[in-house]
Amino acid sequence: MDGFIDPIGRLINEFSKLPGVGRKTAQRYAYRIIDMTDAEAAAFASSVLDAKKKVKYCKICGNFTENEVCDICLKRDRGTICVVKEPKDVVALEKLHEYKGVYHVLHGVIDPMNGVGPNDIRIKELLARMGEDTREVIMATDANVEGDATAMYIAKLLKPLGVRVTRIARGVPIGAEIEYTDDVTLSRALSERKEI
Amino acid sequence: MDGFIDPIGRLINEFSKLPGVGRKTAQRYAYRIIDMTDAEAAAFASSVLDAKKKVKYCKICGNFTENEVCDICLKRDRGTICVVKEPKDVVALEKLHEYKGVYHVLHGVIDPMNGVGPNDIRIKELLARMGEDTREVIMATDANVEGDATAMYIAKLLKPLGVRVTRIARGVPIGAEIEYTDDVTLSRALSERKEI
Repeated sequence: MDGFIDPIGRLINEFSKLPGVGRKTAQRYAYRIIDMTDAEAAAFASSVLDAKKKVKYCKICGNFTENEVCDICLKRDRGTICVVKEPKDVVALEKLHEYKGVYHVLHGVIDPMNGVGPNDIRIKELLARMGEDTREVIMATDANVEGDATAMYIAKLLKPLGVRVTRIARGVPIGAEIEYTDDVTLSRALSERKEI
Repeated sequence: MDGFIDPIGRLINEFSKLPGVGRKTAQRYAYRIIDMTDAEAAAFASSVLDAKKKVKYCKICGNFTENEVCDICLKRDRGTICVVKEPKDVVALEKLHEYKGVYHVLHGVIDPMNGVGPNDIRIKELLARMGEDTREVIMATDANVEGDATAMYIAKLLKPLGVRVTRIARGVPIGAEIEYTDDVTLSRALSERKEI
């Protein structure tokens, strides 16, 4: 393979499967592995197997967990449910240490162009969670076409149930300069302006 | 760790050890691993262990090999030795399918600023290889200060042995436009101009 001996060629192949990794980058990673001590390489390999073996999805919210139900679902206020696309969005929101409610991970958004319909993501599971104690559902899907469409679709399903549905605010990011803000964001920020 | 459950946190940590990989990239890689099937993850992990276990350095030239001596040293004309910094340089040269001689991998270049002296790279081993059948040593170290200094140093050691020592040509890269060629390269190309 490209003049590499077989074990290196295969390692490069494996690294090439990671997102955004081309041949050259995969080669650099492979050289780094070969430069590692035996213990380091063993730790690397076992962390891969371990993650694959131990990481499951919470049967309530769909977030990553090592158990049946994740710590967030077990311990936090279930009156507010924040709906996100992927587990990594939960990580981003948790870093704020502000939100006290639980999550619902859709594992995707409605995206007809790529053949993803409402039944392909965890919307049924969200509806099944709606109970007397549910006060608010916050739609925190991405601020793009698919994220917006998914939020609107779910809001329409939930509102008849009498639950409050909100959407995270869109606008000019904090610290951004007006001059360098993209047109769509700026136009949106203008039309959704608020009283001060 | 950053709001990640332990197996994911450790996997992110391991990926962060690869060259040029920051937290965000390591996270993306970790998510990819978790999305893999069990078999894919197992293949990934075993390729790491395999490469680490099977890849050795050729005891003659220092290149990667699965055996004691690499295929290039076993099969090719030993009259010409091409001296390079790293095994990956061998790969780059082999891709040309032009060079018929053998290699000598220094595993570094002389770099006093970073504490690397002549005794820290495989120069002794190169001298030990010089025999009656050695016709030429081609210095193919990088075209930068350290690469040049290393080439000069080795050339000085070899010339008294009566062996021909050459250096790969430096100049304007093929396809480059003069206007956009950096000053150092252009100045060097000018001063090392050749009769046509």
